[in-house]
Amino acid sequence: MAKERTELADLGEFGLINRLAKDIESINASSIKGIGDDAAVIDSGNHYSLLSTDMLVENVHFDLSYVPLPHLGYKAIAVNVSDIAAMNGKPTQVTVSLGLSNRFSLEAIDALYEGMRAAAKDFQVDIVGGDTTASQAGLILSVSVLGKVDKGSEVYRNGAKKSDIICATGDLGGAYIGLQVLEREKQTFLANPDMQPQLDNYQYIVSRQLKPMARMDIIHELAETGVIPTAMIDVSDGLASEILHLTSQSGTGASIYEDKLPMDKQTYETAVEFNIDPTTCVLNGGEDYELLFSIKQEDHSKLEKHPDIHFIGHMQTAEKGVNLLTKQGNTVAISAQGWNHFEG
Amino acid sequence: MAKERTELADLGEFGLINRLAKDIESINASSIKGIGDDAAVIDSGNHYSLLSTDMLVENVHFDLSYVPLPHLGYKAIAVNVSDIAAMNGKPTQVTVSLGLSNRFSLEAIDALYEGMRAAAKDFQVDIVGGDTTASQAGLILSVSVLGKVDKGSEVYRNGAKKSDIICATGDLGGAYIGLQVLEREKQTFLANPDMQPQLDNYQYIVSRQLKPMARMDIIHELAETGVIPTAMIDVSDGLASEILHLTSQSGTGASIYEDKLPMDKQTYETAVEFNIDPTTCVLNGGEDYELLFSIKQEDHSKLEKHPDIHFIGHMQTAEKGVNLLTKQGNTVAISAQGWNHFEG
Repeated sequence: MAKERTELADLGEFGLINRLAKDIESINASSIKGIGDDAAVIDSGNHYSLLSTDMLVENVHFDLSYVPLPHLGYKAIAVNVSDIAAMNGKPTQVTVSLGLSNRFSLEAIDALYEGMRAAAKDFQVDIVGGDTTASQAGLILSVSVLGKVDKGSEVYRNGAKKSDIICATGDLGGAYIGLQVLEREKQTFLANPDMQPQLDNYQYIVSRQLKPMARMDIIHELAETGVIPTAMIDVSDGLASEILHLTSQSGTGASIYEDKLPMDKQTYETAVEFNIDPTTCVLNGGEDYELLFSIKQEDHSKLEKHPDIHFIGHMQTAEKGVNLLTKQGNTVAISAQGWNHFEG
Repeated sequence: MAKERTELADLGEFGLINRLAKDIESINASSIKGIGDDAAVIDSGNHYSLLSTDMLVENVHFDLSYVPLPHLGYKAIAVNVSDIAAMNGKPTQVTVSLGLSNRFSLEAIDALYEGMRAAAKDFQVDIVGGDTTASQAGLILSVSVLGKVDKGSEVYRNGAKKSDIICATGDLGGAYIGLQVLEREKQTFLANPDMQPQLDNYQYIVSRQLKPMARMDIIHELAETGVIPTAMIDVSDGLASEILHLTSQSGTGASIYEDKLPMDKQTYETAVEFNIDPTTCVLNGGEDYELLFSIKQEDHSKLEKHPDIHFIGHMQTAEKGVNLLTKQGNTVAISAQGWNHFEG
């Protein structure tokens, strides 16, 4: 009899994570929160430590034919910092492991580190260790980040309550449509190597893809205004996937208003140019690394004048579901899309 | 003019690490020790946190044609725990990132996690997070470990002083010669797939390769006897490489006595069978994950009856060099060999 074989693509990344998390029990009392949030929460006595990790694999997460190495280095740090931000914490240290095929020279690694050092400076985090090894297939980056948060200020995905206001920072969908532009220019270049890339009209969305920022500025401002979100997550897989994480873990439903979704003009226009529904970019595009969070209604007045925090909906009871209220006045259930790296 | 290109193989892993560490400055006061030891040391208030990471890449670090997945999972945790042990600390949490090609089924991942959970239990560490992603080339494991140590009990590589006694735990060289056995059986199998592997006479050394233990037992016993080593490192790259790390960072020399080197009978006999000098296995073989440390002379009496701590030499002034005193009475300079993954 043949052994059972279940394809990873059938589970998807979240299915796999849930499966692996299921059998894991904590031994140490200091392990406050394990798998299932943006970062693990660890009791360090006076404060909580936060620990998270992300792996980036060439030709899965990035294409070096259009991603400059310093940008990639910057992004590898930023996406990890973003996980700490999503816990309402501050990053302090990172480790960086590199797998390198012999295609990479020392000068290439220097370029990668140039970006990592720039990000470390921008996000006030120290590169304190790592590992370097050979790889048989291109570049692998694995970054782990340690952060800290005052006890009582940590924010999980599961704390939202009915009637909480849902907030999104910055604008969404840009990183995804920027990626479409880069892919198109690559195909044009492959067809005709004399063609120069035409990126002038797409600078903002391309920068959203190539050099995402972790929103530590928002975390500092929330602290200044004294607002602690009731639940928070960073937008790495698209708004639809993230709102479903918040609502399923909090045991709530949510209503999101399409006309409140924050989108840059360039994102909108380029989506139209590509015949992609702009709202789909926001809902199912990924890699914006903005913050999605819920606040108590009473905190609304403390944030309402913030130019970069947008109030896009509200939590409701689970029975009402997770819905998008469209510009046309329709109610559409939001379903998970996100990224499934194991597909295709 | 062509751009400069420096091959990574010309630098080696340690050259690359030194190069990358050179330009990195710490921003956070909590970053006590960064790149250059077995783990980073971070001030967490009441204690120091320890952070380390290791990446394992298929066909660079392991060959799945003879490494069972549960063993690989166990080893991935153990080698990280070993880095915490080498700082005289205790591991508390790990994160696990996996890169997986579509060759791997859910059942394969379950087997990998079975080993990781067993190691987590043995070493009293919690798996609190991670990342899973696709890979275009086999299996990639990146584990990060967080540990803790009382302030004042942390042990660096650079604290050894002249006349300190050099200690090695367990026995050395077994993992390397075990690997030679596995490689030989693989070649035999490839030449004749009907042949069964002949491993009965090599069980100990094969287990040293496939399922190394982190020596947390030694760390607990050192604490019980009140001995804090003056310098410590784990033996991942072979004794020669490790003693050179300790002496170069401490600014000392060392004398190691060949007749004191701890070696299992099976290691010795198999090395002879393979026409490899057994002492070379100890000096330049890797992956034993034993501890190499120095102690003050006055602490010798506290450890002398320990059955698994061996006194193999002593530190001396740097001018005297780092030497092996052979069984024949010759003095031979020890040179770095270790592993260079970027070669070949």
